[in-house]
Amino acid sequence: MKFSIASRVSAAIAAMVFLTGCEQKDQTPVAAVPDTEVRTLGMGQHLQRHSTLTQINKDTVKRLVPVWNYSLSDKRGQESQPLVIDGVMYVTTHKSTIALNPLTGKQVWKHEIDYPPQTPRIVCCGIVNRGAAIDGNKLFRTTLDAHVLALDLETGKEVWKKEAIDFKTGYSMTVTPLIANGVVITGMSGGEYGTRGFLDGWDPETGERLWRRYTTAAPDEPGGDTWPGDTAMAGGGPTWLTGSYDPELDLVYWGTGNGGPWNAEFRKGDNLYITSVLAMRPKTGELIWYYQFSPNDPYDYDGVNELVMAELEVDGKPRKIIMQANRNGFFYVLDRETGELLKANAFVRQNWAEGIDMKTGRPIESEITKHMRATSEKVEIWPSALGGKNWMPMSYDPERKMVFANTLNFGWTYKPLQPSYRAGVFYMAVDWAFVFSEEQRGYLKAIDPLTGETKWQQGSKIPSFSGTLNTAGGLVFSGAMTGEFQAFDSDTGDKLWEFQTGSGIIGQPITWAKDGRQYVTIASGIGGAYVLFSGDERLASVPAGGSLWTFALMDD
Amino acid sequence: MKFSIASRVSAAIAAMVFLTGCEQKDQTPVAAVPDTEVRTLGMGQHLQRHSTLTQINKDTVKRLVPVWNYSLSDKRGQESQPLVIDGVMYVTTHKSTIALNPLTGKQVWKHEIDYPPQTPRIVCCGIVNRGAAIDGNKLFRTTLDAHVLALDLETGKEVWKKEAIDFKTGYSMTVTPLIANGVVITGMSGGEYGTRGFLDGWDPETGERLWRRYTTAAPDEPGGDTWPGDTAMAGGGPTWLTGSYDPELDLVYWGTGNGGPWNAEFRKGDNLYITSVLAMRPKTGELIWYYQFSPNDPYDYDGVNELVMAELEVDGKPRKIIMQANRNGFFYVLDRETGELLKANAFVRQNWAEGIDMKTGRPIESEITKHMRATSEKVEIWPSALGGKNWMPMSYDPERKMVFANTLNFGWTYKPLQPSYRAGVFYMAVDWAFVFSEEQRGYLKAIDPLTGETKWQQGSKIPSFSGTLNTAGGLVFSGAMTGEFQAFDSDTGDKLWEFQTGSGIIGQPITWAKDGRQYVTIASGIGGAYVLFSGDERLASVPAGGSLWTFALMDD
Repeated sequence: MKFSIASRVSAAIAAMVFLTGCEQKDQTPVAAVPDTEVRTLGMGQHLQRHSTLTQINKDTVKRLVPVWNYSLSDKRGQESQPLVIDGVMYVTTHKSTIALNPLTGKQVWKHEIDYPPQTPRIVCCGIVNRGAAIDGNKLFRTTLDAHVLALDLETGKEVWKKEAIDFKTGYSMTVTPLIANGVVITGMSGGEYGTRGFLDGWDPETGERLWRRYTTAAPDEPGGDTWPGDTAMAGGGPTWLTGSYDPELDLVYWGTGNGGPWNAEFRKGDNLYITSVLAMRPKTGELIWYYQFSPNDPYDYDGVNELVMAELEVDGKPRKIIMQANRNGFFYVLDRETGELLKANAFVRQNWAEGIDMKTGRPIESEITKHMRATSEKVEIWPSALGGKNWMPMSYDPERKMVFANTLNFGWTYKPLQPSYRAGVFYMAVDWAFVFSEEQRGYLKAIDPLTGETKWQQGSKIPSFSGTLNTAGGLVFSGAMTGEFQAFDSDTGDKLWEFQTGSGIIGQPITWAKDGRQYVTIASGIGGAYVLFSGDERLASVPAGGSLWTFALMDD
Repeated sequence: MKFSIASRVSAAIAAMVFLTGCEQKDQTPVAAVPDTEVRTLGMGQHLQRHSTLTQINKDTVKRLVPVWNYSLSDKRGQESQPLVIDGVMYVTTHKSTIALNPLTGKQVWKHEIDYPPQTPRIVCCGIVNRGAAIDGNKLFRTTLDAHVLALDLETGKEVWKKEAIDFKTGYSMTVTPLIANGVVITGMSGGEYGTRGFLDGWDPETGERLWRRYTTAAPDEPGGDTWPGDTAMAGGGPTWLTGSYDPELDLVYWGTGNGGPWNAEFRKGDNLYITSVLAMRPKTGELIWYYQFSPNDPYDYDGVNELVMAELEVDGKPRKIIMQANRNGFFYVLDRETGELLKANAFVRQNWAEGIDMKTGRPIESEITKHMRATSEKVEIWPSALGGKNWMPMSYDPERKMVFANTLNFGWTYKPLQPSYRAGVFYMAVDWAFVFSEEQRGYLKAIDPLTGETKWQQGSKIPSFSGTLNTAGGLVFSGAMTGEFQAFDSDTGDKLWEFQTGSGIIGQPITWAKDGRQYVTIASGIGGAYVLFSGDERLASVPAGGSLWTFALMDD
């Protein structure tokens, strides 16, 4: 009897649910989640951009809606990763630093940088800033005119401002500072302008520079013999993306960029330490170990991409590793204690190398690269100067042991030219053009870091330059150059949700929680290298205009 | 027995609904609504801004969410009313005209105006455009540099462009054109620059000017005796807000603005036809009747506010009326066949007049106005130059016979000065300052048009300069200068819903429907006279940045 009533009740409920258009699955009350902040770039020192939050998940994501929008009053590209600390959200544009109420989007304070009129002319690949770092009561950021700025966290007032270098000769800064063992570490941009790369360590209290490490070895330094003459002094090796820090090992890992000029015949030799990872002590900048991805790199294959830390079993042995999806098309796994190369596999279409020699750690250059080097004739190389993956950060899911990355699928024609250096002007010495021969110019890929293999991929005709975020809810968040903010199924790559944000997305999504509710935040605002150099006419209909978005589940 | 099961079932359902957080009331499947477009300014020739759509209503509005956003790539104020015609949405900014897919927010085409560098300097009250008019296969709009532009509706390509007047002497155009009996009618702005107001009628095909009607009577014209000497020739009477058109009577109703300079002692007399409504034949501009609200107006009380048409029973007699919430603080109802004044009652705090003499139709000036006129001493006058209501259009609910308007609640100090005219420079001849002595500087009011009485009001410390929209769903939509797009209960004024749109709202909401679903669209982007002149520091934290929003009910 009880059973009978119960089943009739169930049927009635089912009917009711159907009639009201209210599906139980979607409307299951979402469990409250613990308060979760985003205190660093990469959502943790490991830069995994993984969240354990599950309120927004494969089932509920269809109820994800905007909860507020905030105009960034800026038509440039928005690449900044927001932070959420002690109930306040912080975000940067190339000229503003903004504190907001994360629940309402209301501005708390705004600091504006007053740039010299000529600043924007010497930034290669877009007028952007990638975000702030926060330590104690201060926020640290870099500026396009190569200064480091410390702002009071409560008021936004300037505490100190230091010039890293004279920007007029081709330097700029867009990098998020890294806080490591009480030191503020910053890199620089300008690898296309005949600059010399470096990293600086700053005292957070006073702004005093504690150390500088150049990334190209001067003639009288160890490694100086890998450069002809004084070519190292304008040899590139920029440090324009933020490294990671392992507090247990007290090691900072920082990638370095391309050699300058691109034409590598002008700088015969390995050119230490371009296109490398440097493992350093944060207090001093002392170099503990390094690994060079692309010795004498001719192809603008910066090694700056984010170095994600994880604990992985590699060939049966647990390892503390760092991994990088390199511009050169290979996915590297290194032992982060020793720098030992553990894995290096292609993760995109590439033809410049046969592979990586696991004994020497050096790429085995392909016939086509050898031909170019021997003859200076025009060749078609994959991936292009923008790489198999550009700066947009991948995320790592420690449960699925899988990386989610927006990858690029186009090549370029390449012919080396005679270089001529002039301060503040492009210094490439290469005749080049992109080769867009495939319909899908990019793929969001789930990549096995140990094999480089793609578990699933989602193609896009216009490649995405958005960072990714993954959650224990089984979702990967990403954004499209045409403005759609998107959620994909972590296991299948199926697109489960999207929302049109007004401009193109080239930002870094984060997720956080407050008062039991999970939020996702992303900046929208088209810009960056692809827009500048691709000539992709399909982007002509995507309007400029920066704004910050926060989403949560519809709360009814 | 049956009863018993049923009640257990009900209880179980109730429990289930409670547990799942799924309230039946909210989840009732929304009824599909018929396709509804927005083909004109004011959502119909009557300018009532009323919609019969009921899908979004008092019960469902809490499930209203953004469906897309589109960046207008413009940091100026966004006052434009979008149109939705034949499945395409059209919107303007001061420099762009944009066609979009209304369901996705994807740009179809965009036309940009290339302004002379000096244009922005001679616009008194904000760099804006209020929207386009569409007729056949052409879109018509005005430009800041006083041109009328016809664009091809399908491609956005320019069909013709005509100069209305040389903008350099203080003229500008922000007005939405009016299409009436096959004529494109445009007004002008510049009442603060010693201009002479006019209306133009244009041939939509060729751009040929068919007629011009000046709004100040030259010395040799009828009404010329209401101006001393040649003062009419720089006497103001601008026509910067769009009139309405009754096709049955073939009459266009158009309001005229303030006299120039503001100091009225310089132009003793009634100053026909400033601060008036003109009823004209659209084919010729012939004046059929007129009514002057504020003869010899000294207070910048433009009579330009929207003239809403309705059929109302007035004192027991059905009337075709037009109504206006005038800047001067009085709500006017006129017979639109004859121009007979039917009602004129104060709808806000005012002290410049005792009332309106219903026999003569003239205001009875108060002692304080008489004192100012007699002595030229400083007085405190309510409302201020921005009026009891500024340009932001009210809406009229024909079921409730109620008007919903954002009204202003502040005064000004006023002292007439000796005028001196210089082309392209403010020509006011008044020493003035706003008086913000009340905490609520504005009210959203439900006003009975026949009595001017307030049925309900919602105060706001920062006054709203948003248009309103009302629906048969019992909702009034409006926006806040701080960015919240809001829905109020038409019967009580209770705020039922809001969403933060990123910048301040000074736009004109519309609602429309496609494929059974009701949408609401509004532009966000702070700007306008209050921001420019109020010195309200609370707006310093509202970022600039224009974008277009479309909302609908969460569809789960």
